Amino acid sequence: MKLKFIKGHGTGNDFVLIPDHDDQLDLTPDQVAVICNRSFGIGADGLIRIVKKAGQWFMDYRNADGSHAEICGNGTRVMARYLLSKKLVTESNFTIGTRAGDVQVSLDENNLISVILGPVIDEKEVLTVQIQGFQFQGELWSAPNPHVVSIVEDLSQLGNMLELPVFAPVDKLTNGANFEFVQLVSEHKVSMRVYERGVGETLSCGSGACAVAKYMQAYWTTDAAITVVVPGGELIIESLPQQLVRLTGPAVLVAEGELDLEALSS
Amino acid sequence: MKLKFIKGHGTGNDFVLIPDHDDQLDLTPDQVAVICNRSFGIGADGLIRIVKKAGQWFMDYRNADGSHAEICGNGTRVMARYLLSKKLVTESNFTIGTRAGDVQVSLDENNLISVILGPVIDEKEVLTVQIQGFQFQGELWSAPNPHVVSIVEDLSQLGNMLELPVFAPVDKLTNGANFEFVQLVSEHKVSMRVYERGVGETLSCGSGACAVAKYMQAYWTTDAAITVVVPGGELIIESLPQQLVRLTGPAVLVAEGELDLEALSS
Repeated sequence: MKLKFIKGHGTGNDFVLIPDHDDQLDLTPDQVAVICNRSFGIGADGLIRIVKKAGQWFMDYRNADGSHAEICGNGTRVMARYLLSKKLVTESNFTIGTRAGDVQVSLDENNLISVILGPVIDEKEVLTVQIQGFQFQGELWSAPNPHVVSIVEDLSQLGNMLELPVFAPVDKLTNGANFEFVQLVSEHKVSMRVYERGVGETLSCGSGACAVAKYMQAYWTTDAAITVVVPGGELIIESLPQQLVRLTGPAVLVAEGELDLEALSS
Repeated sequence: MKLKFIKGHGTGNDFVLIPDHDDQLDLTPDQVAVICNRSFGIGADGLIRIVKKAGQWFMDYRNADGSHAEICGNGTRVMARYLLSKKLVTESNFTIGTRAGDVQVSLDENNLISVILGPVIDEKEVLTVQIQGFQFQGELWSAPNPHVVSIVEDLSQLGNMLELPVFAPVDKLTNGANFEFVQLVSEHKVSMRVYERGVGETLSCGSGACAVAKYMQAYWTTDAAITVVVPGGELIIESLPQQLVRLTGPAVLVAEGELDLEALSS
């Protein structure tokens, strides 16, 4: 069976998009995993099945291992790029349905795509982050998934450390968390490296950048937009009412074609 | 600019194929690197530009970093699959030109694809392979690129060791080598893990499997075909006259489409 696909990314967080407007496809976890496998398939951090349900575009997001996820910030932005570039939506401001509810996306005059995420909440808890023998002080945020944000003097000193397991030994994080390490760059701008649970270091993490931005706004006692430089590019985060944030950045479609499900599974 | 591409692999060694039958394309190293980048591009171990020169199919092979390479065994097999599946060749036995000269490829009755490689030569030199504090005894082979083959009792005991630098501290290998670790499985069958210079551990290495097979034939004093199980599948190696070998295994095309060179470079 041949399946149409698109490959795209948002600051290096990459996705295989499968247009399934009529909601006909039931991809098994194994099929998703092999499509996302970087050697045997197309390769991606996640798969987005694009469905139209009751007149609204819906994002069926799957992790690279085939498991379901509620939402993915950068994934939503890349899906929005697809809908816009294929002229499936004509407004520059619209809604995408997700398992975590409807999210608002928009295209701005710089050709960047925004998504509104959150709430991003300060859990007011200081934790000890451990990487082998090293310890960092981190603050717990929920976005709403758990993030632990640590400020470090120089990100480059982390070297290859994020290839090792990163964890905070507290009961409430027994299922893991995402760990952001942040270096101050200039006023309202920081640089970040991120360790995602179940994955390791990644080029970008949308919700992580949002948690970091809210942390920095509190740290600098400012409401100004925060620029977060991730290894895969640059994201801008603005605060909105009710602890929501607007995450803005590039979203690019790099290829499209057909994949051969039979060959993939052979 | 849009470019047609095909993604395929041979035992997990994966390639982006760019059909350029009329030899019109001059891809820069940066363009090759971004196409092969697994987050920002399609992602592959290498890129194969498929050209017809003076009536013969030619493989312009590039490493994932954009540099030129003379030949790639598994890549040749995947290119042969492309030529066969597109009916650009009709014989089951034909020649592909490479920078290392013409190589013979063929399709067998099990739908496997073979390529004739070599010469594979025993350099009759025993080396010490080092991984951090650990040492292994290895034998140097050229296929014709350098390979150091070490027999170990249990491959699983290597664990994550191949994430560390592997090297043999001798002058003639200052440019590195490929290191194969081999476990005996049954008569004429071994299992192998491979560390490729400039890359690290990979799912498969065609020339490495050939070096290992010739080593095992000498070890077992046999001319019989050797099956080499790599992490990405199974390869069969037969000896031919003049120290040549026939490497046989699966070659699969999993997707095809168009990539957007402008979006890739943005």
